[in-house]
Amino acid sequence: MYGAGDVRVETVPDARLIEPTDALVTVTRAAICGSDLWPYKTMERDEVGRRMGHEAIGVIQAVGADVRSLKPGDVVIMPFAYSDGTCVFCQEGIHTSCIHGGFFGTVEIAGAQAEAVRVPQADGTLFVLPIDVDEALMPSLLTLSDVMGTGHHAALAAHVGPGKTVAVVGDGAVGLCGVIAARRLGSEQIILLGRHASRIALAREFGATDVVSERGEGAVEHVRDLTGGFGVHSVLECVGLEQSMLTAVGIARPGGAVGRVGVPQDVTMPASRLAFYNNVTVSGGPAPTRAYMQDMLPDVLGGQIAPGRVFDQVVPLEKVPDGYRAMNDRNAIKVLVEFP
Amino acid sequence: MYGAGDVRVETVPDARLIEPTDALVTVTRAAICGSDLWPYKTMERDEVGRRMGHEAIGVIQAVGADVRSLKPGDVVIMPFAYSDGTCVFCQEGIHTSCIHGGFFGTVEIAGAQAEAVRVPQADGTLFVLPIDVDEALMPSLLTLSDVMGTGHHAALAAHVGPGKTVAVVGDGAVGLCGVIAARRLGSEQIILLGRHASRIALAREFGATDVVSERGEGAVEHVRDLTGGFGVHSVLECVGLEQSMLTAVGIARPGGAVGRVGVPQDVTMPASRLAFYNNVTVSGGPAPTRAYMQDMLPDVLGGQIAPGRVFDQVVPLEKVPDGYRAMNDRNAIKVLVEFP
Repeated sequence: MYGAGDVRVETVPDARLIEPTDALVTVTRAAICGSDLWPYKTMERDEVGRRMGHEAIGVIQAVGADVRSLKPGDVVIMPFAYSDGTCVFCQEGIHTSCIHGGFFGTVEIAGAQAEAVRVPQADGTLFVLPIDVDEALMPSLLTLSDVMGTGHHAALAAHVGPGKTVAVVGDGAVGLCGVIAARRLGSEQIILLGRHASRIALAREFGATDVVSERGEGAVEHVRDLTGGFGVHSVLECVGLEQSMLTAVGIARPGGAVGRVGVPQDVTMPASRLAFYNNVTVSGGPAPTRAYMQDMLPDVLGGQIAPGRVFDQVVPLEKVPDGYRAMNDRNAIKVLVEFP
Repeated sequence: MYGAGDVRVETVPDARLIEPTDALVTVTRAAICGSDLWPYKTMERDEVGRRMGHEAIGVIQAVGADVRSLKPGDVVIMPFAYSDGTCVFCQEGIHTSCIHGGFFGTVEIAGAQAEAVRVPQADGTLFVLPIDVDEALMPSLLTLSDVMGTGHHAALAAHVGPGKTVAVVGDGAVGLCGVIAARRLGSEQIILLGRHASRIALAREFGATDVVSERGEGAVEHVRDLTGGFGVHSVLECVGLEQSMLTAVGIARPGGAVGRVGVPQDVTMPASRLAFYNNVTVSGGPAPTRAYMQDMLPDVLGGQIAPGRVFDQVVPLEKVPDGYRAMNDRNAIKVLVEFP
């Protein structure tokens, strides 16, 4: 990406091992993320460019001398953040704050919308899949890299559980995965705040019981109407805008919680005072998706959840710029990048 | 209070029962609160005035026809909010969001810096003390009305517990009670952020292990130095200003929590983005002190905690204006109002 709206597919030097803790992964499936759309909308023109992509499944091609748990041929999921898996924060399950960690698709670390990717801290970062996984499950497994784990993180931060009423703000891929997560964690009333017919339909299949398509005060009133006037126990904020955060706090009932995973586009949080007076907890952040893979794997393999359904368009690597355009124009929920 | 700096002691019509759920309480001890200083600094001149005070211990003088659990002669603690004790929010322990609740010392409900006070929803609101409580314990019991319960609320919201490092932002009465609460809940490292020698000394007696007197970036650096570079697990924000909130989020370690109980003087929360990237939870609000009285009573009666030590000045009712001045000038931490 060289600037807003300017994504190119270029031949670059091959990815290679640099540190002894690295792995080199041949990418078999990658994705375009809603968070990739922020720089796609706003990035200043830059001559060096940024190698995008932070979600992938692939095959280990080579490992550095210090890598212990991985071997060439292993099929792995790459979470959007790399982490050593052993530091104090990884032990506490906050892998996105790993002392030796970082993020893919940044200026420093090349991304996974590519034929191959260098993975730092490979032992801690990569999650090995069982052998002989059904190829049809690969899209769902790929979502554990980011969006499904992120929806789950939002649900945990919002204290979702049996008997809790839930609202999901945003009908993007993360919001839709938030619906899956809320249902999976036992919620029986799940209100989706969204406006796009195809996304709403999918949300209902995932477990959404109600849909609110108003915005602002209208949304707050509608959610209150659906919840005896009180608001919901748990809000999953999956957008990251000032307006969506205002709505999220506005629809939380006293003592409730907002789990926010939409990357905040504003520095301050409005509605802070409202959150205070209602004792509403605001939690969340970048999801430690690596921490959730083992927990979610059986439900994907067993077909209890099918988050891969958020992928409604598939492109080959050379068509990635079209994928960005489709997502930015809201002609696609989420785009899968497949390799021959 | 008729406006900023203008507190008068006046003869008004006697407090009386209005609703059948009311109790009439003869006040034996009241207090001036740090939160009373906000209107004391900023209130616009008003001809009607506001009857201040939301912390009291007193004796039941009369009860309405529907009051079941109280009788004249009972010695009671009045929390700063009234609540029915039965609604869904009271059952969830969020008494400050009671459907039939409200706050003392407001325009609607006269306050307790007075000889007597009408207490709505008396059955749910008032906490009956055992008979024959030692008079010397009354100041500590009075703090259960607000500041001690509020410090405890901050500690709970900040997830304080054994093995957690704690910082308390603010050396006012609530901050000092926050130190007591953190110690009581098992924390072994408690860092007080404050600058006043007498308050720091008291905080150390209450259990503070470290003191940080810098502000802003200096405070953040000092707390990091004291915690292996990471910040603390739990921050008790006991001020409510933009700067204190920035500091609170800045000294929280990744995955940590800020329990805020300082009434926010700013509409937006700065450092929202920092909280996001570090997965820092921000929680708290008006403390449901009624919910905590039963739990804290034995520790006060047994002398394990002595939060009444935050009262370093005692005035009779007619000297309440001097009490406000003393607290506003920081010549007193907290002022107790005693009645003959």
